[in-house]
Amino acid sequence: MDWTRLDLKDVEGYVPGEQPQMARLVKLNTNENPYPPSPLVKETFDKFSVESLRLYPDPMMTELRKTASDVYGVAADWIIGGNGSDEILSMLLRCAVSPKEKVWTVYPTYSLYPILVRIAGGEPASMDLKDDGALPAGLADVPGRLLLLANPNPPLGTVYSLQEIEQLCLAQNKIIAVDEAYADFAGVSAISLLEKYENLVVIRTFSKSYSLAGVRLGLAFCRGEIRDAMLKVKDSYNVNRLTQALGIAALKDQACLRQNVAKIVKTRKRLTESLEELGFTVFPSGGNFVFAKPPGRNAREVFEKLRSQGVLVRYFPVRRLDDGLRITVGTEPEIERLLEILQ
Amino acid sequence: MDWTRLDLKDVEGYVPGEQPQMARLVKLNTNENPYPPSPLVKETFDKFSVESLRLYPDPMMTELRKTASDVYGVAADWIIGGNGSDEILSMLLRCAVSPKEKVWTVYPTYSLYPILVRIAGGEPASMDLKDDGALPAGLADVPGRLLLLANPNPPLGTVYSLQEIEQLCLAQNKIIAVDEAYADFAGVSAISLLEKYENLVVIRTFSKSYSLAGVRLGLAFCRGEIRDAMLKVKDSYNVNRLTQALGIAALKDQACLRQNVAKIVKTRKRLTESLEELGFTVFPSGGNFVFAKPPGRNAREVFEKLRSQGVLVRYFPVRRLDDGLRITVGTEPEIERLLEILQ
Repeated sequence: MDWTRLDLKDVEGYVPGEQPQMARLVKLNTNENPYPPSPLVKETFDKFSVESLRLYPDPMMTELRKTASDVYGVAADWIIGGNGSDEILSMLLRCAVSPKEKVWTVYPTYSLYPILVRIAGGEPASMDLKDDGALPAGLADVPGRLLLLANPNPPLGTVYSLQEIEQLCLAQNKIIAVDEAYADFAGVSAISLLEKYENLVVIRTFSKSYSLAGVRLGLAFCRGEIRDAMLKVKDSYNVNRLTQALGIAALKDQACLRQNVAKIVKTRKRLTESLEELGFTVFPSGGNFVFAKPPGRNAREVFEKLRSQGVLVRYFPVRRLDDGLRITVGTEPEIERLLEILQ
Repeated sequence: MDWTRLDLKDVEGYVPGEQPQMARLVKLNTNENPYPPSPLVKETFDKFSVESLRLYPDPMMTELRKTASDVYGVAADWIIGGNGSDEILSMLLRCAVSPKEKVWTVYPTYSLYPILVRIAGGEPASMDLKDDGALPAGLADVPGRLLLLANPNPPLGTVYSLQEIEQLCLAQNKIIAVDEAYADFAGVSAISLLEKYENLVVIRTFSKSYSLAGVRLGLAFCRGEIRDAMLKVKDSYNVNRLTQALGIAALKDQACLRQNVAKIVKTRKRLTESLEELGFTVFPSGGNFVFAKPPGRNAREVFEKLRSQGVLVRYFPVRRLDDGLRITVGTEPEIERLLEILQ
């Protein structure tokens, strides 16, 4: 029968990295933070009233947005909360994409983007990154009303400068959505450009630098027409009570964030150098992961080998990525274990 | 600028009932359960590993779906979890509605439905219920590929029989989505019809009978083509770790559910009778709320009066509803307080 949308029939759903529920695996496949969330998160959890869960959460997320406003120096009115940045992306696409409209990304990037575009009824379009991951010339001039760019950009991890982002914003004909899921590991953020550019949306997640992938929390920073449209498509109670409370706690402990980020950046450097010593080609990464091509370019084999020894990394069997592996920066002992097997 | 969808510009977003964050209010305006969730929920919460929140949740919700399968007697493969039933509805509309396509509801009903239809790019259409809330003749024959029906149907609370639902399913040309948010208070469910009708979707929430509005959890029961399409538009990690764990705990304590439902049904009867004694016209309700018209039909005044005395109920300033109030069935003392003011 044809009860559902015909244009959805040949959309392949997104396949997330494995989430095996067993212990003793070294899990370097979904870019989770290897360190626990802030002690303030634990404290807030322990004090949380389970009985209050019978009540709906605050649909406006007033306190969460106020706290985020303090941390990021952006008016609370320019902040919207989502059930992970996945939902922020989905809201953005739902409010920005008209049927059959082209939405632009670069390639390679987060493979979820083109899928979300098709689910929203749009047509994904992309420009290839340069071989080293740099932005292609002419990206600012693509037609369409929306350009989605991750910065740093997975799976290579390339970091684009604020000047490059601003260059894109200058073409006022479209929304520039910058997905900063990994920005804390790079130290570059377009949030400061919001004052100047009303066509900019900056997207953040608590899944990476805040070690809270399990609570599902993302933020959109945007204003004016885009903010209004996002709020229209937002489910009223899209961020649950506990997630709001824990998000506030995590935001309040920036020292913990900085400490964990510093550890990960240090391990990333060591991992990069060690892989290079083993003959891997490693892309300079601003994320909590590196993309590395084994000397024999036999990435799938290396992936299987690691897997058989209990180390999960991510292998993408697609153009430009099938000769490499994306490896999450874990703890020092986890990276040790990985390198041992690779040697 | 026109960065966002032109057809969204005149969509008015859904306005949820007030969620005042102050104590000492009698909150009878958003159909929350006045009783706390199961002790098993509290136990699960207390044992939950905060550290595990650094990891993504299980995207397949394997254990949650297995537990729901046991409780509802439906194959786990026919169950999909959502971030509240709001998200289930949003997923359904995204996968079923093509641009400009008509989606049918009855009127009056949950006012979110037409808004979600417009957000999904469809055209809301509706048939008026009979004066007593009964289904209109000809509802089974409306064109379009989707009919959304709540059972019991807020805000009146009317309960439709299984035969009436089955009658709708027989018109195989469209999806019949039955929103059973309040079904536990009525004791009628279309879940048993799923075996027979592949065009049926049954939607459940944990916000009402399970006293878990604050965790955001909803379930869709559906199969075949509809199930496949729903899974395509579902965000991978749409239900967070804790919500999955607490949902499992709540499902496992059906005795607590039955007990709370029994208390609410008892109070609903008392509230109905007392309101009738005061001259109100009360619709027979299968939900945890009643819709009641004050003798003077001065519903807004009564609403304001109650509000000024710290009792929140819901007033809908729209056709057919603006002469009544929707009152959530609270605890006995809460209802006592309401009746005191009304006397």
